[in-house]
Amino acid sequence: MKIVIAPDSFKESLTALEVAAAIEIGLKKVLPDAEYIKVPMADGGEGTVQSLIDATDGRLLEVAVTAPLGNQTTAAFGISGDGKTAIIEMAAASGLHLVPPSERNPLQTTSYGTGELIKAALDAGVEKIILGIGGSATNDGGAGMLQALGAKLLDAGQQPVGFGGGSLQALAEVDLSGLDPRLQAVEIEVACDVNNPLCGEKGASAVFGPQKGASPEMVVELDKALNHFATVVQRDLALDINNKAGAGAAGGMGGGLLLLPDVQLKAGVQIVIDAVKLADKVQDADLVVTGEGRMDAQSIHGKTPVGVAQTAKAFGKPVIAIVGCLREDYEVVYAKGIDAVFPIIRQLGSMEDILKNGHDNLVSAAQNVGRIYQMGIVEK
Amino acid sequence: MKIVIAPDSFKESLTALEVAAAIEIGLKKVLPDAEYIKVPMADGGEGTVQSLIDATDGRLLEVAVTAPLGNQTTAAFGISGDGKTAIIEMAAASGLHLVPPSERNPLQTTSYGTGELIKAALDAGVEKIILGIGGSATNDGGAGMLQALGAKLLDAGQQPVGFGGGSLQALAEVDLSGLDPRLQAVEIEVACDVNNPLCGEKGASAVFGPQKGASPEMVVELDKALNHFATVVQRDLALDINNKAGAGAAGGMGGGLLLLPDVQLKAGVQIVIDAVKLADKVQDADLVVTGEGRMDAQSIHGKTPVGVAQTAKAFGKPVIAIVGCLREDYEVVYAKGIDAVFPIIRQLGSMEDILKNGHDNLVSAAQNVGRIYQMGIVEK
Repeated sequence: MKIVIAPDSFKESLTALEVAAAIEIGLKKVLPDAEYIKVPMADGGEGTVQSLIDATDGRLLEVAVTAPLGNQTTAAFGISGDGKTAIIEMAAASGLHLVPPSERNPLQTTSYGTGELIKAALDAGVEKIILGIGGSATNDGGAGMLQALGAKLLDAGQQPVGFGGGSLQALAEVDLSGLDPRLQAVEIEVACDVNNPLCGEKGASAVFGPQKGASPEMVVELDKALNHFATVVQRDLALDINNKAGAGAAGGMGGGLLLLPDVQLKAGVQIVIDAVKLADKVQDADLVVTGEGRMDAQSIHGKTPVGVAQTAKAFGKPVIAIVGCLREDYEVVYAKGIDAVFPIIRQLGSMEDILKNGHDNLVSAAQNVGRIYQMGIVEK
Repeated sequence: MKIVIAPDSFKESLTALEVAAAIEIGLKKVLPDAEYIKVPMADGGEGTVQSLIDATDGRLLEVAVTAPLGNQTTAAFGISGDGKTAIIEMAAASGLHLVPPSERNPLQTTSYGTGELIKAALDAGVEKIILGIGGSATNDGGAGMLQALGAKLLDAGQQPVGFGGGSLQALAEVDLSGLDPRLQAVEIEVACDVNNPLCGEKGASAVFGPQKGASPEMVVELDKALNHFATVVQRDLALDINNKAGAGAAGGMGGGLLLLPDVQLKAGVQIVIDAVKLADKVQDADLVVTGEGRMDAQSIHGKTPVGVAQTAKAFGKPVIAIVGCLREDYEVVYAKGIDAVFPIIRQLGSMEDILKNGHDNLVSAAQNVGRIYQMGIVEK
């Protein structure tokens, strides 16, 4: 009997590997002779680096990078165990958490540090980069990232435009001739779960700007700046980044990345599913167990358990989810391939208690799932 | 396929019948064609009357009775649907909740009202009385109850002793000649889950007196009074109530009841199991589902789910418990016949929310239990 355990992390409580390990402990109490395959998962958002280095026996590298406000900071990214793939979370270098709330101003914040992380990955000799772009503090269309990689974004005086979304209004010319040549040989998969265009009322500035500190007036200015950026790119590179679905992700980072030679925007969970070769692992499994910290109606939109379930269901495998908590509206996940869902909370307590008890509650829930799974149907 | 649903109530949230109904709704979403038998259960404590009238299509009767401090109150008791069995909770007439905390004094509180309830049951023409004795405010050895049923408990001046455990010190004679003759033809089953003797350091006064308001000095006085009561009973009736296991239950009510003609002290859950004919119902079931508001290590001591499980396991049936909350130490229930346990809490909230969401959480948990149960083992 083979059981694949492929959960996401439980945010603020356990990494995906820790979740998988706890589930394994619980199931093993009931099914000690089964073969267990632990596959720490993620959806391209927070925790993706940790899950993928855990899944591939990889490691973390730390590098000095430029923080969103231009100061120096250090940021980590992952390298897979075989050294071929870098896993980068944009938030590590350009995340909102790096900017104190009072200083959040997307007219000024730059994605330069993310470009430096990509450069560090190239230095490490990878063939592929997986890039998660959630949680950014920036609205600069990825301009800073492009500059860090050698692109020339020049103003009318042939000087590089400054940092931040606001500076793009001065852009007069885009020149990619200085782009790091190693990018030609490296495939970049960008975990992107939104379809927003670069500009307009569904664009980066209007939709995501406010959560990064943009006032209504800033939103107008930023949208104008990104529009101007797209116009210059269209003119100089014959590339339409304005209307590409996902271009508006991460303050226009989705659009800016399209200037690099080999970039694909893909659903985050699908990137992870491919990276960990989940299909190979579930195809001969008897049972697939997944999980996430909170399951609700949103879970069908690009979250790990449904991604895992879809992969498992392609082979007709049963899928059980074990979750930290379960919102009233979760039942839509059934139609997406999840056969049963079990929340792990055993008794009321503070959020702190619940996070602290995550491991024990998971072991307990998994044990009981194993017990009833083993029971089977006596007679229909 | 036949599924028996036999849970206890979820205290302060749902009656046992409501719990069973919610579980049925959840299971039916998955197994719509199964036959469902709902058996509201109890363990002889709070909720027993409600569960047994629900289980037998019975009804409640209200009667005027004497409250623990001698004032009048009304109390309800149950009559089974066939009219043959009365179900009485001592607490309805003689419960601690009927005495304001500042007036709690077991030297004075009487079990007279419980005797009146028994008398009302005799008036109703029952053949059997099930009596739950939890939650009492009294420590009078059941003296008040006996007086209400016609027993003469006289002092040296041939006057009836007064109400309350303290008055028993004046007892000079016990005369049962005036006892209600209908008691001869009625079997009384007393739900008693403690083994405490009437007197001494494990006796009623020492162990249960303090929670009824007895000070250390009162405990000494009460213990002396019960000892004296037992001595007089031994002398006048040649009956040893002092050393009988359970005599110390409910302030000595367990002992006092032994003066009646046909009384058995039995485990509460066993009385209920017999009353609802649970064995008949589970013997051809495919699955038995039980539950209680809180499951912990104490659940193996006379609580409903383990009682249900033992009955089901006599026929080799699988047993699943669905519970309000689950304490860390619950795993001992596995050895007692419960195959798997699922707590229903889906997310953190206030206790008020949790109690309010009991129905919905039960439906959800039952649905997922049904889903995984149906899944069975694909391949071992």
